[in-house]
Amino acid sequence: MPLVDRVLLGPGPCNPYPEATLALAAPLLGHLDPEFLRILDETCDRLRTVWGTTNRRTLPLSGTGSIGMEAAFVNTVRPGTVVVVGVNGLFGVRMCEVASRYGAEVVRVDHEWGAPIDIRRMLDAHPKPDLVAAVHAETSTGVLSDIGGLAQAVHARDDNALVIADCVTSIAGMPLHIDEWGVDIAYAGTQKCLGVAPGLAPFTFSERAWARRVERPSTWYLDLGLIGDYVSGGAGGGRTYHHTAPTAMIASLHAGLGRILEEGLPAVHARHQAAGAQLQDGLAELGLKLFAADGHRLPQLTTVWVPEGVDSATIRTRLLRDFDIEIGAGAGEYATRVWRIGLMGPNATPARPALILAALRSLLG
Amino acid sequence: MPLVDRVLLGPGPCNPYPEATLALAAPLLGHLDPEFLRILDETCDRLRTVWGTTNRRTLPLSGTGSIGMEAAFVNTVRPGTVVVVGVNGLFGVRMCEVASRYGAEVVRVDHEWGAPIDIRRMLDAHPKPDLVAAVHAETSTGVLSDIGGLAQAVHARDDNALVIADCVTSIAGMPLHIDEWGVDIAYAGTQKCLGVAPGLAPFTFSERAWARRVERPSTWYLDLGLIGDYVSGGAGGGRTYHHTAPTAMIASLHAGLGRILEEGLPAVHARHQAAGAQLQDGLAELGLKLFAADGHRLPQLTTVWVPEGVDSATIRTRLLRDFDIEIGAGAGEYATRVWRIGLMGPNATPARPALILAALRSLLG
Repeated sequence: MPLVDRVLLGPGPCNPYPEATLALAAPLLGHLDPEFLRILDETCDRLRTVWGTTNRRTLPLSGTGSIGMEAAFVNTVRPGTVVVVGVNGLFGVRMCEVASRYGAEVVRVDHEWGAPIDIRRMLDAHPKPDLVAAVHAETSTGVLSDIGGLAQAVHARDDNALVIADCVTSIAGMPLHIDEWGVDIAYAGTQKCLGVAPGLAPFTFSERAWARRVERPSTWYLDLGLIGDYVSGGAGGGRTYHHTAPTAMIASLHAGLGRILEEGLPAVHARHQAAGAQLQDGLAELGLKLFAADGHRLPQLTTVWVPEGVDSATIRTRLLRDFDIEIGAGAGEYATRVWRIGLMGPNATPARPALILAALRSLLG
Repeated sequence: MPLVDRVLLGPGPCNPYPEATLALAAPLLGHLDPEFLRILDETCDRLRTVWGTTNRRTLPLSGTGSIGMEAAFVNTVRPGTVVVVGVNGLFGVRMCEVASRYGAEVVRVDHEWGAPIDIRRMLDAHPKPDLVAAVHAETSTGVLSDIGGLAQAVHARDDNALVIADCVTSIAGMPLHIDEWGVDIAYAGTQKCLGVAPGLAPFTFSERAWARRVERPSTWYLDLGLIGDYVSGGAGGGRTYHHTAPTAMIASLHAGLGRILEEGLPAVHARHQAAGAQLQDGLAELGLKLFAADGHRLPQLTTVWVPEGVDSATIRTRLLRDFDIEIGAGAGEYATRVWRIGLMGPNATPARPALILAALRSLLG
């Protein structure tokens, strides 16, 4: 079969940075090779820079973004642990599900989909939670929430609670200041603004969280104590084999991060900001209505109402067939009523919004 | 930094088939792209052929081999489930740990490391187990066990028990007849005889196992019901998003499997057999002693005693530095006393044993 070459403007994966693709094709290294361990160490350092953290336990977990969510909860939830979850989209719903499977008492704070998390309502939901969790950039709705403000407000009231942030769609697309904000645990995915194929979950876990971790979590694969002994060495300094690290994917993440840091994080963030503004302005000019609340829209992921009388699936199929462009359907009850258009990683350039706007103009016109 | 190009003769990863590497560098596809779904479907079909199964639930899980072990137990173990585990190496030990974290009553049947699983002792260990688990090809010791004989004996006595087989190092290196043997659940890794980079866990789950699964396993990421709705479609036939599949790695597995099936499984198995025999004969000629019990040695992974007076680490370091060859240290208490030499995937050719034997001759000389 001939290969197809798509322009990936859905909610992720995006097209990878060329450096990330080339690294996948480089000679494979073993997971205990000194040269691979150097790459792994440097990858963790680069992740610290992108997260804005000095957390020792900062590493890529061996699974896709969702495994980061699992790791966050399996290492912190005991039966009866009180978890306040802000829900303003699909990934907030998923947090409730994951935490409850580990026996958490979940206090779900529902918001309208398309609106940001309300810090006041999160604080009012429970007087003394163990964990407070929310999504920074909701992939399902295209909404940005003030995760820094939430973390600061939680700690100002009660220094006991740990704050968990889902940064799957925000990482490398907008500034993250995990330490300054007081976020204790955060996870992400590689296939969004990091511009790397899906398959790893960048993860960071503070000393405060470590002090209160579950000692023997039910999922051995995600036991941070054991993983940490391999990634950054155990108490004695030596590295202990845990599982075979996905070496090709880690080399690819290393290369993608290298590209981003060489360009410079502020420039990369500005590029995402500009591309998103160009797209959102252009959609308005086409007469389309944006879904996410004004003032809280993600530049890297735009949600837009499907115009009255237009069949969502038909347009997406024609974009794929005639233009080799993928965009996303809406999530949940908005599946047929909203489109999701991502401009992430190398797709955050003026050419991509120009292309998708031209294609939509011709199909809707 | 310049790239290094290793000959990977450790216990895995091996060097990938060139087709698998090229697929990693192909244009990335989205996880809902019809073209990707075609590749995914074909990958599952190819895995069925390699496993020797018609199980509908046959798929690559999104993690390294160990996540297959997690998935096997999290989907079958309830508190108090009786699991008889054959332990003749590190991965048997790990099965006990993983199952016990999910609340299993583990009946551990210890064998000497280097010896195969004793079917009689497995049967005698418990009169009515819920699960019987063992490793087909122990990566830590280089030993093959008669997993088919074990499964048949278990079912002959008591049709209630489900049989779980770890096939991480056996898959595509030797014949697997999951259905014919009566193995209910099996998992593997991509980085051994499949000749693909690490990052996926081929997995198969029978209808019998499905009928007795845990309905809401604690690990959402490994909930087979939810994953199945994406990989092979739900009750209504449609596919439901679960997590973003690692599309590049799956395309690579698809290509590696394509290469193997084009060559033909019997030819691939014979190639592994011949390369292993060549290595083991050559090691004996060098005066080295093999570790695994005679008659139960894996051709794809040879364990050999480090000769008296030789420092294991020094030789491995010189192999890496002077020859760009990686071999493995021993596992557990044999770390400094045994070497593990893999001839897997594209390394199962006459050239590789010739190379490592020449290198060892010159270093031990």
